[in-house]
Amino acid sequence: TKHYNVAVLAGDGIGPEVMAEAIKVLNVVADQFQFGLTLTPALVGGAAIDATGEPLPADTLALCKQSDAILFGSVGGPKWTGLAPDKQPERGSLLPLRKTFDLFCNLRPGHIYPAFADLSPLHPRVSSLGMDVLCVRELTGGIYFGEKGRSDNDAFDTQRYSVAEISRIARVAFAAAQKRSKKVTSIDKANVLQTSILWRETVEQIAKEFPDVTLEHMYIDNAAMQLIRSPQQFDVLLCDNLFGDILSDEIAAIAGSLGLLPSASLNGSGFGLYEPAGGSAPDIAGKGIANPIAQILSAALMLRYSFGEEDAAQAIEQAVQHCLEQHIVTRDINPKSTYGTAAVGAAIVATL
Amino acid sequence: TKHYNVAVLAGDGIGPEVMAEAIKVLNVVADQFQFGLTLTPALVGGAAIDATGEPLPADTLALCKQSDAILFGSVGGPKWTGLAPDKQPERGSLLPLRKTFDLFCNLRPGHIYPAFADLSPLHPRVSSLGMDVLCVRELTGGIYFGEKGRSDNDAFDTQRYSVAEISRIARVAFAAAQKRSKKVTSIDKANVLQTSILWRETVEQIAKEFPDVTLEHMYIDNAAMQLIRSPQQFDVLLCDNLFGDILSDEIAAIAGSLGLLPSASLNGSGFGLYEPAGGSAPDIAGKGIANPIAQILSAALMLRYSFGEEDAAQAIEQAVQHCLEQHIVTRDINPKSTYGTAAVGAAIVATL
Ligand SMILES: CC(C)[C@H](C(=O)O)[C@@H](O)C(=O)O
Ligand SMILES: CC(C)[C@H](C(=O)O)[C@@H](O)C(=O)O
Repeated sequence: TKHYNVAVLAGDGIGPEVMAEAIKVLNVVADQFQFGLTLTPALVGGAAIDATGEPLPADTLALCKQSDAILFGSVGGPKWTGLAPDKQPERGSLLPLRKTFDLFCNLRPGHIYPAFADLSPLHPRVSSLGMDVLCVRELTGGIYFGEKGRSDNDAFDTQRYSVAEISRIARVAFAAAQKRSKKVTSIDKANVLQTSILWRETVEQIAKEFPDVTLEHMYIDNAAMQLIRSPQQFDVLLCDNLFGDILSDEIAAIAGSLGLLPSASLNGSGFGLYEPAGGSAPDIAGKGIANPIAQILSAALMLRYSFGEEDAAQAIEQAVQHCLEQHIVTRDINPKSTYGTAAVGAAIVATL
Repeated sequence: TKHYNVAVLAGDGIGPEVMAEAIKVLNVVADQFQFGLTLTPALVGGAAIDATGEPLPADTLALCKQSDAILFGSVGGPKWTGLAPDKQPERGSLLPLRKTFDLFCNLRPGHIYPAFADLSPLHPRVSSLGMDVLCVRELTGGIYFGEKGRSDNDAFDTQRYSVAEISRIARVAFAAAQKRSKKVTSIDKANVLQTSILWRETVEQIAKEFPDVTLEHMYIDNAAMQLIRSPQQFDVLLCDNLFGDILSDEIAAIAGSLGLLPSASLNGSGFGLYEPAGGSAPDIAGKGIANPIAQILSAALMLRYSFGEEDAAQAIEQAVQHCLEQHIVTRDINPKSTYGTAAVGAAIVATL
């Protein structure tokens, strides 16, 4: 039988409590679909800083290297905001993990489900039309990792992209679109940036490999506007690292349901880091009211993309869907709900 | 009596028709408030490309240099999208104008007016809380104007900011906040960019000169989210060139009324370029249905910021407000309206 080793990095705030539910769900589907799972916890983020002084301790990194995937919770909180940027929980853990494992591809689905359209902060005349977008974000290049520096009087950052970097993320976007509504909207600022001109040209080239997919280009400023005016026009959004950072959070806001949104960060050989789109929510941590669904759906993405366990992934997604339909949700989804983190987790387990 | 020379660059699409109404309004207030105005038209954008091959002909630039302000319409359209980036109407006219006249400060107000909350694509539970933000965008630095280049295989852009550049735009934001709700939200990506760390430190320094103004910092990704979730939390947004480009358009989308939003781009000595936030809208050009209000309000900003004619500026703003209240609006504001561009312009003139 197959066996998978998972590094479980629960992190801070609500991370540990939502991770506990995801672990229960994973153990159930492993039984049902007959694969072995070793889930090994390790410190990350603020919890790791408190214990070791580092947001990504060497032991944690070593565990990740021996694992088949990383299931990540969330990191950060008011306690650590005073630290230098590269020592901070989020940046100090996520950026080195992305770079070490060459996780160049970030997938962030965003939905407005008709039954939950009211969660969206958009007007019903817009949200009733629905939204079903997949944001494909380049994650290991661009201005995040280019040469940077500063003196007393000024500072600089460099955005650099190569044809190879653009091509590989573009292929992911087109391949994803082929399984969806066959449309890619590539985001750039080609009226200003040389990297965007190269981005646009390269994406045009890759598009030829996918003749059944429609390609359009959109400036980032216009995209920020169009997502609010008519999000239903989009299928797959293809973005560089910075524009993807901005638009994926804008999409999450439009969906209105951060607690339901998973994300996957992948490299070219099946390894990935899976985490909820939301943050560590320190204000509600420890209260047992955090929504575990984004973490559970992140685990489902891990089964799909890193382990190829499509049936198990779908079983989780269907169980989540079932609980949503039964209104078994935490109070971020329905303020009148009395279900807590554990109750929602248990309901998903029971459905499975 | 005072006399002002204005370079009138109407441009493409709806530019000429909305500009015609702004000119009528300007001539009326010049009479009323007893100042002289010379309004000299010149070619810009696609119209200039067609006539001269250049989006910003030397004659036009020379006129601008002899003028006290530039009243700009809008440029661009499908006819010119195939041109090389720096030959395109928008970029090829706006970027050199900004650089030539050191227009480092872009002001973009964004409103949800209670009476027009339904224009906003946000849910009434959000839009009913209103929005009254001023986006202060640095306009002559950052990744727009840094060193850039490309080879066959890669391309790069450089974002560079100096303490002096950040300080002068920060002072504008704080001074504006003093006259408003006394809060500045400074936007950056200080967890990733060196320029953002310098931005944040410099803004902290400038804040000390304005002890009555509250300063908060927000990451660009979070800001893109928060603007949708609760736009009423913001007063003045202080942004670099790229982040301001994105957020000011996001704000315009949230306001839902592009046709009502003016903008001002200023240098340190009272010279400015004034233009509507919306584009050239080629789809409705020539039909007499475009909303002239953003252009008229841009003219009011010119009177205020470049000429110090505060009374005349307010008179225009009040006349616009009056027409809005009387529902004398084009159909972008009220689809059932039968008022066209000229009728709305005439009503504003009549109110004056
Ligand atoms: C924490 C930060 C460096 C990170 C990013 O900007 O990529 C975060 O915002 C994200 O999107 O995962
Ligand atoms: C046309 C383009 C270069 C310009 C910009 O990005 O600044 C436009 O989007 C704007 O905001 O005025």
